[in-house]
Amino acid sequence: MFYNDKGRPTVEWLSALEAEAATRRAAGLRRELVPRDPGDPVVDLAGNDYLGLSRHPEVLAAAAQALLDFGLGATGSRLVRGSTAAHRDLEAGLAGLLGFERALVYSSGYLANLGAVRTLARPGALVVSDAHNHASLIDGCRLARCETVVAPHQDPDFVRRELSRHPGRPAVVVTESIFSVDGDLAPLPELYEVTSAHGAVLLVDDAHALGVIGPSGAGGVAAAGLSGAPGLVVTATLSKSLGAAGGVIAGPRQLHRELLDTGRTFIFDTALPPAVAAGALTALRLLESGDDLRAELHARARRAVERLRSEGLEVSEPAGGVISVAAPSPDEAYAWAAACRERGVAVGCFRPPSTPDGRSRLRLTIGVGVPAADFDQAVDIIAKERP
Amino acid sequence: MFYNDKGRPTVEWLSALEAEAATRRAAGLRRELVPRDPGDPVVDLAGNDYLGLSRHPEVLAAAAQALLDFGLGATGSRLVRGSTAAHRDLEAGLAGLLGFERALVYSSGYLANLGAVRTLARPGALVVSDAHNHASLIDGCRLARCETVVAPHQDPDFVRRELSRHPGRPAVVVTESIFSVDGDLAPLPELYEVTSAHGAVLLVDDAHALGVIGPSGAGGVAAAGLSGAPGLVVTATLSKSLGAAGGVIAGPRQLHRELLDTGRTFIFDTALPPAVAAGALTALRLLESGDDLRAELHARARRAVERLRSEGLEVSEPAGGVISVAAPSPDEAYAWAAACRERGVAVGCFRPPSTPDGRSRLRLTIGVGVPAADFDQAVDIIAKERP
Repeated sequence: MFYNDKGRPTVEWLSALEAEAATRRAAGLRRELVPRDPGDPVVDLAGNDYLGLSRHPEVLAAAAQALLDFGLGATGSRLVRGSTAAHRDLEAGLAGLLGFERALVYSSGYLANLGAVRTLARPGALVVSDAHNHASLIDGCRLARCETVVAPHQDPDFVRRELSRHPGRPAVVVTESIFSVDGDLAPLPELYEVTSAHGAVLLVDDAHALGVIGPSGAGGVAAAGLSGAPGLVVTATLSKSLGAAGGVIAGPRQLHRELLDTGRTFIFDTALPPAVAAGALTALRLLESGDDLRAELHARARRAVERLRSEGLEVSEPAGGVISVAAPSPDEAYAWAAACRERGVAVGCFRPPSTPDGRSRLRLTIGVGVPAADFDQAVDIIAKERP
Repeated sequence: MFYNDKGRPTVEWLSALEAEAATRRAAGLRRELVPRDPGDPVVDLAGNDYLGLSRHPEVLAAAAQALLDFGLGATGSRLVRGSTAAHRDLEAGLAGLLGFERALVYSSGYLANLGAVRTLARPGALVVSDAHNHASLIDGCRLARCETVVAPHQDPDFVRRELSRHPGRPAVVVTESIFSVDGDLAPLPELYEVTSAHGAVLLVDDAHALGVIGPSGAGGVAAAGLSGAPGLVVTATLSKSLGAAGGVIAGPRQLHRELLDTGRTFIFDTALPPAVAAGALTALRLLESGDDLRAELHARARRAVERLRSEGLEVSEPAGGVISVAAPSPDEAYAWAAACRERGVAVGCFRPPSTPDGRSRLRLTIGVGVPAADFDQAVDIIAKERP
């Protein structure tokens, strides 16, 4: 009854969406949800549960206990009713592991990155952002409404020259440590030298390095000896090695205070569910003592790279648990991933706009929760199903 | 060893943050985290668990079962490994309740709103946004990078005039249904008439109305008879009446397709934990059959308003479970809330920048999970502790 048949532009809006969808489909860029059932038999080389902690019995027990202690949802934002002892303890644990004065937990890594970039990019600041940075960092740059320069991937000299063109200007240099698409590691010592010389802040997204590299799995910043370094801020997710969900910003107490008082994606968002925070804290303890898990992860990554390269495939050099394998086209990447899936192996299929360079690839992630024999067989299948 | 004592601007950055923190403290705008322990005895008139479902035994049981079925984290984005049967079923349930072709679940309501505004604000579009809209909607407008006009609160005539100045131009009108700060209800039929006449899209954030008003608790859009209306899109959170976490966008199938293929805050974010999705689905069934809970909620809201007005306090007229009570200043609002807290009652304390008009207030939320006698006593305490 409320339908307005004079509403021509409304109909045009839907028609425009349909036309765009058809264009994407023709270009092989269609995406589909494939829900998993319990007991899903697929061998997972696509998820980010690097240490297998999402199913660790102690993690599940901690989460289940927190469900009883606090209920399911946090019932409010962190500053209203959403903070629990689980959040407090998790933040203390993360600050300790990452080696910074304070850590602040967000309901997602995306929101943590939005908050970090926006808060660090002070009015008038210059932002220099690596070309391969994650969408959440790019959106953070957009929200910051500061001048943003996109630096060529892994190019500290470019960053140095860019900063030197703006002496004395507040600046933030934004990078991932282990990059999410190709799994390569940023030159953090060089970048930190550059930002320190300029007096800029270096923001490092350690999402794919936390739990995977560094002493006690403390991540890429720790591996570079930069934990707690002045002028350095770290973000990470709790959804990868920690097997949970959420994000974190770690840095000096003054930044923590600023985020508490003014950070929109912190203040105006419902807190991470307490059970997720409690599970993440237990996972953190397991992660810290998980050198054996990390050794196994790196050994598997090595084996997979050698096996795939032996087939003549173009394979990235992994710093941690992410390996990318070049595919000839979006369509062939999709068909390759689908063929693996047919044979019971899940791999990531990254196509534009999820790739920073317009190239399509399979993304393999190494999780030690997969039985070793299944893992090796899965890599064989990926090699054999190549286009 | 990495400290660079030539790094003057880095030190200046921290000093600037400290100076700003001091200014905020002096203005009464400091915020503190107050973590709850298990068994917290506080009477909660601050959280958003309107129907008390965050602690419902069936909700907890569903979440606990999903922990065992799927583990704690989703282990990846929805399009990679993050989709489970729990997400699929929850989306079907939400689409059914909200009355739209499709529903897409996000890991937070903040990210759902960012995604909705950005996707609806097509290139060249005009965005008209209510002055009291939530931070996530405002940030969505910023990310959309379209011309945005802020409309005076609850002013369909302004919206009509603004749209009529741009005949034929794609446009999106953005509003909440029940507003989060004062609890008032937007004039949705009038707004929809205006957007339909122009052929604009109306985006309604139903976060505080879902579960509270409308047939079967379907929210403000349903209460206005607009479920599934063409040119209308709804967002909501799963963290309020559903007692869980996450957000949702409901709309036509073409929008769902666009979000799947191109929505950055959907594609590049780890999925909502399966246990949270499973708990939310069980909560959804309880919400739909919860007319008795809604009747109790509205009766309590009525009693609270009358009690507080009888003290001469300036109290908003609640459409649902949100009541705001004016406070003379940020400092007095903070002291008032602190005095209530001393006496065992949690209330929201909204001060700039969390208020759309620069005024400070207490925000009371009505949750039927609080025992009735505790609730009435809490309202008495709030009245007696007035500044």
